[in-house]
Parts: sequence; structure tokens; C-alpha cells
Amino acid sequence: MRHKFIYRNLALAIAFLFTLATYSQDGPKWVELFNGKNLNGWKKLNGTADFKVQEGAIVGIAKLNTPNTFLATEKKYGNFILEFEFKVDDFLNSGVQFRSDFKSPKGPVYGYQFEIDPAQRAWTGGIYDEARRGWLYPLTYNPQAKTAFRNGAWNTARIEAIGNTIITWVNGSPCSYIEDDLSPEGFIALQVHSIGDEKDAGKTVAFRNIRICTTEPEKYRTVTENGKFADIPEINCIPNTLTAKETSEGWQLLWDGKSTTGWRGAKIPTFPTGGWSIEDGILKVHKSDGGESTNGGDIITDRKYRNFILKVDFKITTGANSGIKYFVNPELNKGAGSAIGCEFQILDDDNHPDAKLGVKGNRTLGSLYDLIPSRRDGDFTFRKNDFNTAMIIVKDNKVEHYLNGYKVVEYERNTQMWKALVDYSKYANWPDFGNLAEGHILLQDHGDEVWFRNIKIKEIK
Amino acid sequence: MRHKFIYRNLALAIAFLFTLATYSQDGPKWVELFNGKNLNGWKKLNGTADFKVQEGAIVGIAKLNTPNTFLATEKKYGNFILEFEFKVDDFLNSGVQFRSDFKSPKGPVYGYQFEIDPAQRAWTGGIYDEARRGWLYPLTYNPQAKTAFRNGAWNTARIEAIGNTIITWVNGSPCSYIEDDLSPEGFIALQVHSIGDEKDAGKTVAFRNIRICTTEPEKYRTVTENGKFADIPEINCIPNTLTAKETSEGWQLLWDGKSTTGWRGAKIPTFPTGGWSIEDGILKVHKSDGGESTNGGDIITDRKYRNFILKVDFKITTGANSGIKYFVNPELNKGAGSAIGCEFQILDDDNHPDAKLGVKGNRTLGSLYDLIPSRRDGDFTFRKNDFNTAMIIVKDNKVEHYLNGYKVVEYERNTQMWKALVDYSKYANWPDFGNLAEGHILLQDHGDEVWFRNIKIKEIK
Repeated sequence: MRHKFIYRNLALAIAFLFTLATYSQDGPKWVELFNGKNLNGWKKLNGTADFKVQEGAIVGIAKLNTPNTFLATEKKYGNFILEFEFKVDDFLNSGVQFRSDFKSPKGPVYGYQFEIDPAQRAWTGGIYDEARRGWLYPLTYNPQAKTAFRNGAWNTARIEAIGNTIITWVNGSPCSYIEDDLSPEGFIALQVHSIGDEKDAGKTVAFRNIRICTTEPEKYRTVTENGKFADIPEINCIPNTLTAKETSEGWQLLWDGKSTTGWRGAKIPTFPTGGWSIEDGILKVHKSDGGESTNGGDIITDRKYRNFILKVDFKITTGANSGIKYFVNPELNKGAGSAIGCEFQILDDDNHPDAKLGVKGNRTLGSLYDLIPSRRDGDFTFRKNDFNTAMIIVKDNKVEHYLNGYKVVEYERNTQMWKALVDYSKYANWPDFGNLAEGHILLQDHGDEVWFRNIKIKEIK
Repeated sequence: MRHKFIYRNLALAIAFLFTLATYSQDGPKWVELFNGKNLNGWKKLNGTADFKVQEGAIVGIAKLNTPNTFLATEKKYGNFILEFEFKVDDFLNSGVQFRSDFKSPKGPVYGYQFEIDPAQRAWTGGIYDEARRGWLYPLTYNPQAKTAFRNGAWNTARIEAIGNTIITWVNGSPCSYIEDDLSPEGFIALQVHSIGDEKDAGKTVAFRNIRICTTEPEKYRTVTENGKFADIPEINCIPNTLTAKETSEGWQLLWDGKSTTGWRGAKIPTFPTGGWSIEDGILKVHKSDGGESTNGGDIITDRKYRNFILKVDFKITTGANSGIKYFVNPELNKGAGSAIGCEFQILDDDNHPDAKLGVKGNRTLGSLYDLIPSRRDGDFTFRKNDFNTAMIIVKDNKVEHYLNGYKVVEYERNTQMWKALVDYSKYANWPDFGNLAEGHILLQDHGDEVWFRNIKIKEIK
């Protein structure tokens, strides 16, 4: 036992020296949030699951018939570096809130959550916006981080929340990286997730060595060898803006958030005079008769694009139909209806009849319209009442659709199989459908109210 | 002029020394077939185009309103090495017959032809069986040989016809390689092709330095560094046999040419007692009512196959329908109709109604039935009244169909696009259609008379 003690102190000393060398001669000024003995400084919110102190750790115990329970700090924190250790029983979802708040003592608690996810999905270290926007950074955006978490063992977590930049680490591996400005400060809270199955009652999640640095945290933040905060994909949650990282990577706003610059009607040389409006950084298609391009009509980019990553945030209304098209040739269809191109379908699958038409779901949300049904499994996420991110990646003939970071469609055009598929679809008689080297990008007016924002593109070689 | 003469003799001397070193201390005993002055030893057959002697070459002159004209040797030749030079005007097809004969002085001349093809297809050096079986070795079997021929210049040709092995070279590059036993000997003849357009009248093809070695030609045949006769794909035209080269490459007969060994009914444990017969090395499906598996029923291989190259020769009758299926699971369809698998369609496109059904030709000959139409362009060849070779290459998820050496279909299964395509087809409701790791190979009884032979397979890793 004595040897162990010496080794442990030696290890701590080495870690301390390493920290000195890495961060600063002084080192960060850590404050312990948990005294190792009792729950002084913490309060329980939202649910009725129990927390107890055991072997120097806070242990939360899963309980039936209660919503999520949180053990929150009395204090609020804005800019900080937070570190803690955690260990969780199999299949018990949990998380740590930060910059969070609650609407009444009985909840709901809302705000950023550092996800703890021992299930097969393995999104530990992802960022979920509890009781608000949902997933901000599912690990579909950074799949290699899914291996950082160790099931059934103690894991270390680190969160840097400095200004709009929030980055998480699990066992030293960067997991999530967002830019957001919704909540600049709030409490920190340990979650015991609600359970639906009696067999999970009594399962535990434990936290220890919870410490925070709020004194000049920007001085001690992580900086990688190449001068970045983390070498993982960044998700910018602030609509219609570009971060420095996005700009340096070649991203451009395809819509400025306020004017019609860069866009025109698909069949007219100017922007439609009606049927569309711009309010509070949102580009809205108006509700009309539900017809295809019968009101304001589709709008397209002035420019054509060849190889690119396109991101568009969209929010639907009940029963809505719309879409994002690419490789659009506005010269093809001079008659009624929408301009011709490949379409990332936007649809209220539950309430619009088109979801049940077509073949085996190939007209549902995220599908390549009338051609390839969008994949659905555990990782598929859609927010019916909030904005969602459609992403389309085109690299020559290879194309992928993503919905909220999850790949729903992939295909290769300009192949014999592609032609055979198109020949079965409603595009069969448009010449060489989908095989253009470059084309316009289109937002569809299908006579239903749909909101767009945060339209950005990165052209790739 | 004098210098030229010296250089030419020097070049000949060097060539002679090279020949000595390469082949034998004695060198092949060449006999000149053309004396450089007149057409002694040659006779004109079949057509009425003119041949004249000009600057030491035999020049054939294209003429309207005559069939192919041939200038043939009086003598016949069996085993030989033949060399000659040739030069041809743009777009004037020509060739050199060997081991050939004619049925009457007015023709038709028939037999092996060394192809001369200055058109874009560029099959010079291929082997065509004139007025008999058609293409034995189109350069689709060896596409890199298409660059050997030089348009508008003198080219050198070499033909080695020794036993059943016939190999051609153009300007030193091996072009065709067949194994055949149909005509062991015959005359050699220079072709002036018939023309259909007045603008081609007067175009010429010229031959010179025509020499043959019939004395121990096997002693002087080409042998490559690795001990083979040529490092190009060999086509074995002798049905139901394997050459030494095929055996060494791993080819196996999938049908022995005489028994039902290795095959059984798709829905019964034994070979069908009726509906099929074996005669003269040909496996015949009998004519019945044109229905799907209503007579003898489909037959399948006992074994399953995973990755392979499959070759099947087939000959249709008027209006016939049949097919070769692979990845067949005979357990799937226990009801009426054919067993379920991917099908290389066999059809008389001109006379069977199914050719016009389906979508945009996806039920025509060579198609992946009901899924992908077979490609048709200048290189597509089909012999309605003779045997054709279907070839199917499976490498994991990548599959290709060939008809007589020409790729008509290619696709990738176990992909999202494949599933979307299948979902549109008549296979939509068979579980996981076409995605088996391995399956049986099937010959279809569709109630029409179709002949099969020369069924061979090479399993690949």
C-alpha cells in the first residue's frame, strides 16, 4: 500500500511538471467542485433519483418513474476548463450539464450536456442540448472519437468552454467542437437519466475529482501542434456566420442571412417578388396551395458548383414538402413544375402523402427524391420542431446526403447502374439526368411553409 | 540512292543476325509467296476488285458492286509461320485469310482471317472466321493490342498457326491467341473488302514481303520469357475442352460435355428426367410452351460459387427466351416459376415480346434481367445463328456481364444504390436480392429451345 502511495504521488508530480511545461509556468488555478465527503455546494433538480457519496465519488442511482434527475452546482460558471472522472454501468445513459439552467425547481433543466453513452452508439463526449435543441454534436460528426470511452472503467473528461467555443475530450481524445452563443453561462450538473425498464433500477453513474479553472482559462486552453484548438470537425451553431476555422478551410456563406444576393428564380432572371421572405436571418418559403413552383417558384444560386460540401439548415411546418436540389440545369424544364436536378428531399414524413408514394420510401425526408430512400436506424435524428442540418457532399461522381451529421444516402452517378435506376424513376426521360459536371443549387417552393438559414458551401477539388 | 541501298542492306544484315541469334543457329527456312514482280502463284476468288503489282507490292483496289475479293495462293498450308507487311487507306477494311477454302470459284471464301481494321474500332490483328463463325478473337479480348497498328504506314504482321494454336502479331505486339481445330489447312488470301459507298472506290490496300516458313515451324515459334507462346488472353474455340494454359490458370469445366454430372434440377434433388437432352457435346433445353420452368425446369450446379469468371456458350432459336443465373438460392422460391438469382438474360430480342417490356431495354439479351439494360454500340456482337459466349465476372460485390468479349453490363451489389434499383424491379420483395456471398449457377428452362455448351469456370480469390 505504501509503494502504491509513493507511485501515485510520483505520477501526480510528473503530471504536474508536464502541465507546467505544456500550459504555463504557474499552471491553471483549479477549484474542486466536490469536497470528496458530502454534497455541499450541490442541489438536486428536476427528478427524484438519489445521489450519495461513496469512496470519494458522487454516485447517482437510477430510479423508475422519475424524469431525468440532476445534481447541480449552486454557482454558475461562464468561461472555464472543467475536468472530472466518470464511470457508468452498462446501458445507463448519463451526462454532465454545463452553462445550464432550469425554468423552475422541478425543471426542466436545459442547456449543454457532455454526453455519457455506454450503449452501442458510443457517443460519449458528444454535446446534446438538453430540453432545448437536441443534438448539437453527435459523434457521427467525429466517428473516431467513439473509441475514446472505456466501458466499466473510470474515464477522464475535459470541457473547455471559452467564449463561443466549446470543446470536449474523453481520456485525452478530442470528441466534440462547437461554436455557439446561446448560453454564455450557467450551472454544472450531474445527470441520472430516467429509465424505462425495471432491470435498470439501481444502476449507477459515479463522478469524482471534479475540478474547474475559471481564472484566465484562455491561458490554459488546449492548443494543438498546428496552432488549432482541436483537430476535429467543428460545428458552428451560430446561424449565417463563419468561424475563423471555417474561413480558413474554405467555407463560404451561400446566403448572407439578410438579402437575396447570389440567388434568383429558377425560371426568371431575378429573385421572385413574392412567395419568399427574409426575417431574422431566416429565408422562408410561404404557404400557398402545396403545388410545385406555383407561387414564388424555386430559387437557384447565380453560380454553378462542381465539387462541394453544402450545408443548409431547414425547419419544416406540419405537412410540409420542399427540397434542396443540386446539379440543376434550369434550361431543361421550361414548362410547369420544379427545375430539374438531384433532390435532397425535405418532407414531413408523418403528414405529407408523398412519403408513402414512390417506391419503398424513396420520397421520404433525406432521400434522393424518387431514387434512393434515406437510411433509418438508431443514429438517424430529425427535429420536427426545430432546425435540422442537411449536408450534401459531391466529389465528382460520388455523392452523399447527411441529415444532422448522419449519412442517409450515398451513390455514384455517371455509371450504368445509375442510369438503370434513373430509367425506372420519374426522371427517366430527362436527358442524361444527374450526370452534369456542374450545376446550380436550388431551394424548392412546393407551396408549403419551410424555413432555411445557415446556407454555406465549401468547394473542393 | 546509293547510300540508301547500303543502309538497307546493312539493316537486313542486322535483322538476319538478330534472327539467327533469336531463333536458331540455322534460322527459319523462309519461302517468299510473292516474287515482287507479278502475281504468279496467286488466283483471284469471290469478287471482281482488281489487284496489281506496284513498287514491289501487291495492291488491291476497292470497287463498288462486288462482294469481298480475294487473291489466294494456289497452294494450301497447314502449320506455318507467315510474315508480311501491309498498308491500308483510311476506313478501308481488309484482311489476310489463312487455312481458308472456298466452296466454288465464285465463293464464298471462308476460314480464318487476320483482320486489318483502320477504323476507330481498331481490331487489326484480331481473328475473324470469314463466312463461317464470325469473330473468334475481337480485340475486346485484348484491348491493349488496339494500339499496335499504325494508320497510313507500313505495318508488319506475323501469324503462327501450329497445330490448334493460332497467334497473331502486329508490329511485334501479340494481338490474338486462339485454340481451334476446325480447319487444319488451307490457302492464304489477301482481301479487298466490298464497299458500300462510292467515295471509297479506288482506295487501296497493299501487301509486300510476304514470306512463309513451313519447315519445322514449331522450332521457330515465339516463346516469351516465362515460357508461354504469348502473354495475352487465350480463347479456346474447341468446345468442352481445356487447354494447358486454361488448366494452369485454374479453369475447370463446369459441364463435361456428355453427362449430367454436377447439375440438378433447381427444385428437385436430381437432374430433370425430361425437358433437357445432351447431344454431340450440346446441352439442349427443349421447346415446350414458352413458360417459366414449366417443362423440365431450371437446372443448377450442385456447388455454390463466390468469386468467379464463368463462360457459357449459347445458341438461340427464333423467338427464344432463356438465361444464366448466378447467386441463386433455390430455397427462396418454392412456388411456380424460375429460381431466384441475378440473371444474364438470353433472348431473341427481335422476336420475343419481353425485349420490349421492362424499362428501357432492361430485359434484352445480355442485360441483368429487369435491372440493367445491356450496352449496345459498335463493338457489340451477337450471332443469331451460331454460338455466342456469355461471360460473367464476379469479384465480391463487383459484377460484369460480357457478350462475345464485349462488356455489356457492370454493377456493384450490396450498395444503397443497388437496393434502390432492386426495389424498383420485379425482385423488390425477395429478401436481400442479389446480395448473397455465394450461390448456385443456373441454366433456365423458359420453354424455348436453346443450346448450351463449353461451360467453364475459374474461381478467383
